[in-house]
Amino acid sequence: MTLLYKADPERGKQWAQLFAHKAPEIAFRLWPDTGDPAAVRFLAAWQPPEDPARTLPNLEVIFSVGAGIDQFDLSGVPEHIAVVRMIEPGIVEGMVEYVTQSVLTIHRDLFDYALQQQQRLWRALPVRAAASRRVGVLGLGMLGSAVLERLRLFGFACAGWSRSPRAFPGVECYAGAEALDAFLARTDILICLLPLTEATRGLLDASLFAKLPQGASFINVGRGPQVDQQALLDALDRAQLRNAILDVADPEPLPPEHPFWTHPRVRLTPHIASATRPETAVDVVLENIRRHRDGLPMLGLIDRTRGY
Amino acid sequence: MTLLYKADPERGKQWAQLFAHKAPEIAFRLWPDTGDPAAVRFLAAWQPPEDPARTLPNLEVIFSVGAGIDQFDLSGVPEHIAVVRMIEPGIVEGMVEYVTQSVLTIHRDLFDYALQQQQRLWRALPVRAAASRRVGVLGLGMLGSAVLERLRLFGFACAGWSRSPRAFPGVECYAGAEALDAFLARTDILICLLPLTEATRGLLDASLFAKLPQGASFINVGRGPQVDQQALLDALDRAQLRNAILDVADPEPLPPEHPFWTHPRVRLTPHIASATRPETAVDVVLENIRRHRDGLPMLGLIDRTRGY
Repeated sequence: MTLLYKADPERGKQWAQLFAHKAPEIAFRLWPDTGDPAAVRFLAAWQPPEDPARTLPNLEVIFSVGAGIDQFDLSGVPEHIAVVRMIEPGIVEGMVEYVTQSVLTIHRDLFDYALQQQQRLWRALPVRAAASRRVGVLGLGMLGSAVLERLRLFGFACAGWSRSPRAFPGVECYAGAEALDAFLARTDILICLLPLTEATRGLLDASLFAKLPQGASFINVGRGPQVDQQALLDALDRAQLRNAILDVADPEPLPPEHPFWTHPRVRLTPHIASATRPETAVDVVLENIRRHRDGLPMLGLIDRTRGY
Repeated sequence: MTLLYKADPERGKQWAQLFAHKAPEIAFRLWPDTGDPAAVRFLAAWQPPEDPARTLPNLEVIFSVGAGIDQFDLSGVPEHIAVVRMIEPGIVEGMVEYVTQSVLTIHRDLFDYALQQQQRLWRALPVRAAASRRVGVLGLGMLGSAVLERLRLFGFACAGWSRSPRAFPGVECYAGAEALDAFLARTDILICLLPLTEATRGLLDASLFAKLPQGASFINVGRGPQVDQQALLDALDRAQLRNAILDVADPEPLPPEHPFWTHPRVRLTPHIASATRPETAVDVVLENIRRHRDGLPMLGLIDRTRGY
C-alpha cells in the first residue's frame, strides 16, 4: 500500500520522515519516483498528474495538500476516486492569525499611521471602539467560523454570510443570495473566506463593493479569481473602499507591473495567510486513511456536485 | 462640590456631558474656568496646575486622565492629596488590540512582506507555529496581564517579568532583578509595559538588548524614556534586534530628523496604543468619588513611595 506525494518537494521530505515514524506500514513515495504504479492507492497532491486513473490504476483517494481543491481539474478524475481537501489545525491557526492581524491593522488605522510615518508626522487619529466596528465574513466553513470566534473576543460587531443557514453564538448570521445585500450594508470590514466555485468566481465586483458602506475595507483570504481586480482598484480610488488587504491575486504570482504592488491603500502578501503544516497534515491524512479503510466518512471529503 | 477638568478640551466637552447626565450633583468645570477655587475637591488632569494645594485649597484627589502618572511632578503635591491613575476598560481594550496586532505583525513576518511588496517580489517565507514563538511582557499590571491573557489564546509561549512575584495560568512568571536575565534569554518578542519610575528609566539599554536571543524583536508601549534610543538603533543595525514597534518615544513628538521615522525595521506610532475613553473613564472616576466618600480604597490609588 503506497501513498504518493506530489507537491512541494521540501515539504515532501518532512512528510516522508513523518510517515516513516507514524505509519511505517505505508510505503511513502515522492513524485516522480512512483515505484509500482499499481501499488499507489493514495495520492497527496497540489495538482494530480494528468489522467490519474490511467497513470495510477488502483488509486482510491486524492488528498489535496491545500485547504481548497479549486486547483484540481476534477473533470479528469473519475467518480470512484474520492477527493478530500485538507482540514487540519495548522491551516486554521494560520488563518486566524492572519485575519486577526489584518482586521486590527484596519481597525487601528495602521495604514494611515504608516503614511504619517513616511511624512514624519506625529498626530493621533480619532479612536473607535471595537464594538462599533462591524466585521463581516463571507463563508462560514471551518475557517470563517474560527476567525469569527477569535474576533468576537475583541468585541467587534460580528456577522457572517453563507449559502445555507448557519448559527454561531454572538454572530449575526445571514444566508442565501437574498440576504447578501443586507449583510454587505452593515459591514465595515469585509473578509472573503469563500471557496472558489463557479458561483463565487467574480462575485466581488463593482456592484458588490458599491453595496458596502462608504469607506469600508476589504480583506481577501479566499481566492484571487473571486475578485474583479479592476473594480477593486476603482472602488479604492473613488474612496468607496478605504483599504484592501490581499493575500491572493489573479494570477499568482501577480506580475510586477500590476498596480496592487504600489497602491498606498493595498497590502499584498504572497498567499501566505495559512499553509498546511506537515506535522498536523500527516496526522489528518492518516486519520482519513483509517476512516476510509473502516468505511467511515473522511474529514473534508468533497461533494462532487457542489465542488467543495 | 466641584470636579475640575484640566486636559484635552475636546474630550473635556464629552466629560462635561457625561457628568451632567450621570452625576448632576457634582459641579463640572473645564479649566481654566475654575469657578470658586475653594469648591474644587476633585481634579481630573493630564498635568495638575502648579502648586495645586495653594491654587485649589480644598483639593482632595487628583485623577490622572492617563494610565500612568509619570507626567505629574509629585514633589509639588502634598501627601494629603490622593493621586489616582486611570484604570478603565477602554485603556485595556486599546492596549490589547495594539499589542496583539504588533505581535502578529512580527510573528507573521509582515515587516519582511512589506519590503517584498516594495520590491514587487512574490515569495513565501518559512512559517513558524505560534507555540514556538516566545513572547515576554515586562510589567504584569492590569495591562500586562490582559495582554498575556489574549496572546495565550493564539498559542504563543508566554512569559512575564515583574518586580514582585505574580502568577497567571499558562504564563511563565519571573520576578525581581535576579530573574531578569533568564526572562530575556528566553524571549523572542519583548513587550515593555512597565510604568516609568526612577527604577525603569533607561532600563532598556545596550546591555539589556544584548541579553535577548539574536534576532529578537521589541515592542514599546511603556514610556519613551525607558529606552536608550541610540542603543536600540545600534541593536537593529547590528541585527541583534530584528524589528522594533514603538508607540512611545523621547521626546514626544519625536523630531522629524530622528532616524526612527525612516528606519525600515522600525514602526513608529504617535502614542496611540491606548487612550482613555470618556464614556468608561467617567464611570471609573465616579466610582472612585463614591469610594473616597465611603472611606474605601480608590481603584488606581498611587503608592507615593513606589511612584506607581
